[in-house]
Amino acid sequence: MNVKSSTEAAELIPRQSDPENEESPPSIFDRFLTPAELFYVRNHFETPRIDGREWRLTVEGGARRVEFDMTALRSMERATLTATLECAGNSRALLEEKAKGVQWALGAVGTAEWTGVWLADVLERAEPAGGVKEVILEGADRGAIDEEPKTPGEIAFARSIPLEKARDVLLAWAMNGEDLPERHGYPLRAIVPGWYGMASVKWLRRMALVEQPFQGYFQTFEYSRWVEMAGYRSLAPLHAGEVKAEIAAPAAGEAIGAGTTYRVRGAAWAGESAIQTVEVSANGGGAWDQAQLLDRPARYCWTRWQYDWRTPSGRGRATLMARARDASGRVQPLERNKLERSYAVSHVLPVDVMIT
Amino acid sequence: MNVKSSTEAAELIPRQSDPENEESPPSIFDRFLTPAELFYVRNHFETPRIDGREWRLTVEGGARRVEFDMTALRSMERATLTATLECAGNSRALLEEKAKGVQWALGAVGTAEWTGVWLADVLERAEPAGGVKEVILEGADRGAIDEEPKTPGEIAFARSIPLEKARDVLLAWAMNGEDLPERHGYPLRAIVPGWYGMASVKWLRRMALVEQPFQGYFQTFEYSRWVEMAGYRSLAPLHAGEVKAEIAAPAAGEAIGAGTTYRVRGAAWAGESAIQTVEVSANGGGAWDQAQLLDRPARYCWTRWQYDWRTPSGRGRATLMARARDASGRVQPLERNKLERSYAVSHVLPVDVMIT
Repeated sequence: MNVKSSTEAAELIPRQSDPENEESPPSIFDRFLTPAELFYVRNHFETPRIDGREWRLTVEGGARRVEFDMTALRSMERATLTATLECAGNSRALLEEKAKGVQWALGAVGTAEWTGVWLADVLERAEPAGGVKEVILEGADRGAIDEEPKTPGEIAFARSIPLEKARDVLLAWAMNGEDLPERHGYPLRAIVPGWYGMASVKWLRRMALVEQPFQGYFQTFEYSRWVEMAGYRSLAPLHAGEVKAEIAAPAAGEAIGAGTTYRVRGAAWAGESAIQTVEVSANGGGAWDQAQLLDRPARYCWTRWQYDWRTPSGRGRATLMARARDASGRVQPLERNKLERSYAVSHVLPVDVMIT
Repeated sequence: MNVKSSTEAAELIPRQSDPENEESPPSIFDRFLTPAELFYVRNHFETPRIDGREWRLTVEGGARRVEFDMTALRSMERATLTATLECAGNSRALLEEKAKGVQWALGAVGTAEWTGVWLADVLERAEPAGGVKEVILEGADRGAIDEEPKTPGEIAFARSIPLEKARDVLLAWAMNGEDLPERHGYPLRAIVPGWYGMASVKWLRRMALVEQPFQGYFQTFEYSRWVEMAGYRSLAPLHAGEVKAEIAAPAAGEAIGAGTTYRVRGAAWAGESAIQTVEVSANGGGAWDQAQLLDRPARYCWTRWQYDWRTPSGRGRATLMARARDASGRVQPLERNKLERSYAVSHVLPVDVMIT
């Protein structure tokens, strides 16, 4: 049996250098947890250099303005959460219609164990009023984008979270048991489990409780989708991830022996839900076979899967497809939803291979 | 005394041909009401050709779905409203920093007497529920914009109005006592007095009552501004107009005799408020003299003004400025507010002339 190992490619793949944006190599799908040094990096501005001893987190907009240093946070009740993060632009490079933005292929995704304190415990100290609807999370990363769509001058990376989701959010200082690396948000980042990565604000430095929906740059011009309202298209911030399976092996264009058994491998995840099944089709979607799940399905986390494919006896092109279903009944669609703008690429992505 | 008449230029000035966008000539400031054939035209898509006998207006989202034809509307209680409309992009061409969009100079503004029925009377028939927050107004004009920022495919021009503003809105079939011309929205358009023109949806065909704020293309990607929220920039739809005076004569670069009296003329308006004073400075803002108001200030309407300027005795360049103050105390600022994106150009716009 041909089990192709992808561990030979064990370095991040640069996608943009200023700011730093790097994609994980296919080898990350060999392990459930993604090592920090192979975890994709999505930065909007230059990485801030922060001295953890000087750093403070402030919370405004409650009855009390509160401020924390790392010692104060570390003295609170700790929590650990395993969560997959996927960049909202992951797989954009595979869209048939070329889309603006960083050209991510399959590797703007990863899973880690995050340790810190619950956001809710921190917010409680600020005594939010009853009318509070959202909390704005601000990173220390800031700058200006001068091409369309332009930022309103120099701004910080900031995103808001509705208060009901804030209950699930962790403020993490550790990733897989080690202090956060600088590029992943040292000394503190949010982890918003089940949501696209843009919500998990890095280098967290300020939070503000607000009574109106925040319409910041990174949830309107960027990281938004069109939703239906009364028959119209209305812009809404991207939030929870879609159900999605990715094929890690074979790679597109890979040559595979005819009449052999090839172990197709990949991972699947489902935003705030858990994966239920993954199916594979080797005939363009005519028939679907169940893949074997390698990790116990869990909310917020990917589940790796494999499928032993008996390859055709004749030479030529073959197309593999994988589709996932989640515990809430969502099934990965075959067609791209164009209302997602250039985000949330979660339809079935066929992989063409050569049978030789 | 040199009173320059601008009536010689009595045709619309083309700014874009597909779709049709035309600016009013300076001669409009000679009259309080702007004739329909000289009224600026701001279209986003091709002008719809509508047969008024076939046309219907529907209202959805209330307890009853209601439909009106023109006969039904004309049998309701009539109202007439005089209102100035200014395109949100008016004066964009005069910005120091070149901005995207139709390059309007001073003439994307005009005043007319509008006749029709109150929007509130029409909405009442649909029996809106208590939770309704906004009404979406949809025109028959539709299409797709394929450059950034892209529309979500083909869409209708649509804008929402908060229910509390809906009380002031007229649905008009006549302009200065005549049926609406095709390019101005025949057979029915909204007139949202005091708001930038984009809210006064033309070729009105459908309205929808909604309980959440609508975030359509023409109030997010276009026709929006940045506002302050908890120290951040949050995107908000453009709505009421700012206080603004325009100098209609002299024109920029005009040659004016030294040591004479020149009648500086223009108009001023103030969104939902009324003009209180207009002042003119001929020395770069060092001293301001009161201009004479030619029309009785009224909410929603422009007030024309004039100022007899004793020109310098020496030759050279001179700079004229006009600034308005409204009944609510707002004063036109000297500096551009960059958070307005490429809209609401309402700071003092100096006019340089040559003294000869």
